[in-house]
Amino acid sequence: MKLYTSTRAPNPRRVDIFLAEKGITVPRVEIDIMQLEHKRPEFIALNPMMRVPVLELDDGTHVSESIAICRYFEELQPEPALFGVDMEDRAKVEMWQRRMELNLMFPVAMAFRHLHPAMAALETPQIAEWGEANKPKVMEVLDWLDSEMGDRRYIAGDRFTVADITALVAVDFMKPARLAVPDTCANIKRWYLDVSSRPSAAA
Amino acid sequence: MKLYTSTRAPNPRRVDIFLAEKGITVPRVEIDIMQLEHKRPEFIALNPMMRVPVLELDDGTHVSESIAICRYFEELQPEPALFGVDMEDRAKVEMWQRRMELNLMFPVAMAFRHLHPAMAALETPQIAEWGEANKPKVMEVLDWLDSEMGDRRYIAGDRFTVADITALVAVDFMKPARLAVPDTCANIKRWYLDVSSRPSAAA
Repeated sequence: MKLYTSTRAPNPRRVDIFLAEKGITVPRVEIDIMQLEHKRPEFIALNPMMRVPVLELDDGTHVSESIAICRYFEELQPEPALFGVDMEDRAKVEMWQRRMELNLMFPVAMAFRHLHPAMAALETPQIAEWGEANKPKVMEVLDWLDSEMGDRRYIAGDRFTVADITALVAVDFMKPARLAVPDTCANIKRWYLDVSSRPSAAA
Repeated sequence: MKLYTSTRAPNPRRVDIFLAEKGITVPRVEIDIMQLEHKRPEFIALNPMMRVPVLELDDGTHVSESIAICRYFEELQPEPALFGVDMEDRAKVEMWQRRMELNLMFPVAMAFRHLHPAMAALETPQIAEWGEANKPKVMEVLDWLDSEMGDRRYIAGDRFTVADITALVAVDFMKPARLAVPDTCANIKRWYLDVSSRPSAAA
């Protein structure tokens, strides 16, 4: 196996944290996004969507999409379970994983991609009004998430899961997007201190 | 169990087709989105994200997010397998499910929500420029998908999967978004005829 990836970009980092939590090491090939290496023909052959990460299996199959890669490793090595422990828990974890992805990480990404000068060559057209429209969406979701997190330690319940990984990466991605968790969100701040102090967060 | 849903809206339809393929019937409670019933307190109590569908389990747990609901039913009744048949196949199906969702259904939704007059009250602010920017994204993905589909019957391979459901719903969603599959995409048109003639597509 081989992982084509880009250190510190948000989606690759989700896989890196996931692997660190599982204690799995995979040989890596670094793809430099700022140098547009993901748009070169040899990378497009691996993933026509031109996105990192891509997992190359031993039979030459290529799997892209961070969550598809994480699920593959969850099956390869079930413990610790990061997608839930039983049928109902797995439904809940998937729900929270998707909520964190679609309602938190995604609007943060839109604010970043459509407002940050460094993204002008990658996100065309950059539409500042759309970037701005996503900022209040992020704040609304954080407010609501804070109210949800009053009675539990992790995003999807009492166990650390892939939903925490997506949420952690989304919150860290707020910094380059020039957004910050409001001080009123005490539960999120408590959760953030907790999950970001795990060794896997250094990934 | 009970399914709070909205007939013919794209995400609810994904679950409806999925259930039809499985041959599962679930009691339904209709939520009228145009009457903003999904923004009423009694619905917000079920899903604070204010989105349909929501599955109520017998123990009172609520699961939202269409794909989380589909996965729950996949575990409840594994056959026919719609998320893949083995570890590698499941990774591939998840990859294609997500590609169809994030790179096809999502830009179609953006074109619809940010350009259609009927969405003015639901999508605030409506940003026409962002709606327009998504139209070429849809066309690019269709062109590429067509080239991928030359050598196989279904989106993720030789079997009908949840990736076909997402893609079918996305292509049907193109109509209200005022988009059409170009005539040059003969493979997609062949696939569309095939999957839309399945009894489940009437859901």
